[in-house]
Amino acid sequence: MSSQPLPDDLRATLDPRRKSWIESANDAACEFPIQNLPFGVFSTAQHASARVGVAIGDSVIDLAVLYDAGLLRLPATVKHNVFARGALNDFIELGRDVWRSVRVQLSSLLARDTAALRDDAALSARAFVKLAEAKLHLPVNIPGYTDFYSSKEHATNVGSMFRDPKNALLPNWSEMPIGYNGRASSVVVSGTPVRRPNGQLKLPDQDRPVFGACRKLDIELETGFVIGRGNALGEPIACEDAEAHIFGMVLLNDWSARDIQQWEYVPLGPFNAKTFASTISPWIVTLDALEPFRVAQPVQEPQPLAYLRHGGEHAFDIELEVLLQPAGAQEASTISRTNFRHMYWSMAQQLAHHTVSGCNTRVGDLMGSGTISGPTPDSFGSLLEITWNAKNPVELKGGATRGFIEDGDVLTLRGWCQGEGYRVGFGECVGEVVAALG
Amino acid sequence: MSSQPLPDDLRATLDPRRKSWIESANDAACEFPIQNLPFGVFSTAQHASARVGVAIGDSVIDLAVLYDAGLLRLPATVKHNVFARGALNDFIELGRDVWRSVRVQLSSLLARDTAALRDDAALSARAFVKLAEAKLHLPVNIPGYTDFYSSKEHATNVGSMFRDPKNALLPNWSEMPIGYNGRASSVVVSGTPVRRPNGQLKLPDQDRPVFGACRKLDIELETGFVIGRGNALGEPIACEDAEAHIFGMVLLNDWSARDIQQWEYVPLGPFNAKTFASTISPWIVTLDALEPFRVAQPVQEPQPLAYLRHGGEHAFDIELEVLLQPAGAQEASTISRTNFRHMYWSMAQQLAHHTVSGCNTRVGDLMGSGTISGPTPDSFGSLLEITWNAKNPVELKGGATRGFIEDGDVLTLRGWCQGEGYRVGFGECVGEVVAALG
Repeated sequence: MSSQPLPDDLRATLDPRRKSWIESANDAACEFPIQNLPFGVFSTAQHASARVGVAIGDSVIDLAVLYDAGLLRLPATVKHNVFARGALNDFIELGRDVWRSVRVQLSSLLARDTAALRDDAALSARAFVKLAEAKLHLPVNIPGYTDFYSSKEHATNVGSMFRDPKNALLPNWSEMPIGYNGRASSVVVSGTPVRRPNGQLKLPDQDRPVFGACRKLDIELETGFVIGRGNALGEPIACEDAEAHIFGMVLLNDWSARDIQQWEYVPLGPFNAKTFASTISPWIVTLDALEPFRVAQPVQEPQPLAYLRHGGEHAFDIELEVLLQPAGAQEASTISRTNFRHMYWSMAQQLAHHTVSGCNTRVGDLMGSGTISGPTPDSFGSLLEITWNAKNPVELKGGATRGFIEDGDVLTLRGWCQGEGYRVGFGECVGEVVAALG
Repeated sequence: MSSQPLPDDLRATLDPRRKSWIESANDAACEFPIQNLPFGVFSTAQHASARVGVAIGDSVIDLAVLYDAGLLRLPATVKHNVFARGALNDFIELGRDVWRSVRVQLSSLLARDTAALRDDAALSARAFVKLAEAKLHLPVNIPGYTDFYSSKEHATNVGSMFRDPKNALLPNWSEMPIGYNGRASSVVVSGTPVRRPNGQLKLPDQDRPVFGACRKLDIELETGFVIGRGNALGEPIACEDAEAHIFGMVLLNDWSARDIQQWEYVPLGPFNAKTFASTISPWIVTLDALEPFRVAQPVQEPQPLAYLRHGGEHAFDIELEVLLQPAGAQEASTISRTNFRHMYWSMAQQLAHHTVSGCNTRVGDLMGSGTISGPTPDSFGSLLEITWNAKNPVELKGGATRGFIEDGDVLTLRGWCQGEGYRVGFGECVGEVVAALG
């Protein structure tokens, strides 16, 4: 568990025995039980303004309505309804004490024995929207997007394929959480169609590249964390303090055009191969909700340099899976199952490394884990690895096979933490691939 | 000249014979004559709210004041004073027709024979601030920062030093304007002190890296362009249309920690070596003001793929220089002189390539040229190249030498276009290096 004990009222929100009067939240398979309370931004056909909500059972609770009704208290210094916004940033800016206070208040309001909202039919009618009727938006404005490369298995696989199987892992990999700047503008919310990119392809039988649609379109199964408290330029975040800067986590599909990538990436890294779209799940699961699922990260050998050390447990036991459903197929096929706990470098280490040079971060910044691959092909986090660059196509239900993604394929990431009798889920991170521009 | 002829009223603003009643603007050495009219954001000790201004002679003209006084007209759909803002984005969002209209109006108001402002002493007293008394701010909110690598000489020099002198230029370099995502959060305005970064250094005599202050701190002499009109995700910008998406240009010093870079950059590119600071000049010189200085770019061989072709002239004749002044030195030494016209890939080609995958851009995005090196050591755009990785230290006035930057050094970039009897200048891009955190 964390090195810093949680306040008692916050710990109570994690009690597996706590049930809600929203009965759908009490189902053992529900991803949004009262222990989760993830934050998102939604609108409806009837009420088109995007505002902040929390998922509970089969519903979204509208925090803007609760606040206006006086059922959610914020510090007296807050003069505006920070929930009546199209992004979570203003709420997150209020700080961790406020996030935690809102979590404690919501957990209490939604608990089985609390009457205030439960017995107020008129307010409930305004405050709840069925998830099926909610349009979910990008939950935060993302000022910056950084992607790491922190799965040892993934880095080894890619190094084996594209560089040298005997020296697959480069010497710097074991010393630092390698990362690079991504493109924040093209981060989209789950459900947004993803257009296959055009670009330069270097075919093996030709001297010069050709221009055309990507032929090796891939997913990257990742998680991302969202910065909850920034740091000033020139003032690094210490590894021990880093988790206090994290608001929560999402699923992240860092779509990748492998053929474009292979031709462009030396020496300055991936660019067009990644900047056409990165999809995140719409609900941000707070680090507080993930507290019961802390586990030890893999042993780090060699021991990291001092600025990358932290005591306690900083990995999280998050089950992950990837599904692929071709256009017209009856059902999706699971093509990978893995777990976030395999990650070599922790989120805290990533953030300490990111800022050690003095780089500043801002509320809403998204930090991707890098592709999360386990030790076996059925736990790899990309088709590149699962099919070993299309040499071993993956078989889908119904008989189709895939080396890489085809037009019309729907790719879905899922993630959840399994508690005792409940699960803290991330919801889905979905994208359908549409044909390239002609 | 441009393939599309300019409107007559815009062309008139470029007439070398036009003079201003602001006499300091008519000096042949002045960087801000009536032909320039660059946009920035400023405040003063007496009036601390940042607002939009235009540099003219030794002064800044406050556009928020002009607008409120009815001397600057915007389309009737504009309901707020977009100049009374701490960033140019809202003004830029109004579109090129509006930028051009404001330029035409300002040129007329400031022209020697126009009485409206000249003869209104009370309004002039409110509308003008001496540059020496203005605090200049970052001119735009920068949602995304991309850096290219478009000088053939620079790419060849770096490839020679760090990879293979015989194959210094990688095969992809001649086919596309190689670029990578930078870190927008740490772009700072000229004058901001730059703290020497700490990070991992791999010393040649040790197996493992050490943690410490960068020992090879460097500049990169670049220009940057600012996006004036974005594009939607999935909708590339054609090369022929790209310049219409550019608001203007700045000078850019992309500070680089060469030792950190060399250890971290394979395979995902530079990260901590660049993210600690990038400095831009405070005035954005519009593409319209640069129109008379169009020249042909270097011949491109092989001919680029079709999506990277454009007719006409797309390079600009911008003189550039770098000065270094050690702490306590009486004067600065010029350590490099070069010209933007040497760049192999044009800004239009960079933007077409950036978006060809479908990547979206947004108003205010900054796109760096990459280090601008000429053909000889005294025209190289980084100390890495000038001193050939400190092997040939550069001599400064007074006898000091430099391999890389020392604490207390002040680095200054300057840039200007030389017209007939006037010069369109960029102002200075300055940063003093301060010691690393202990």
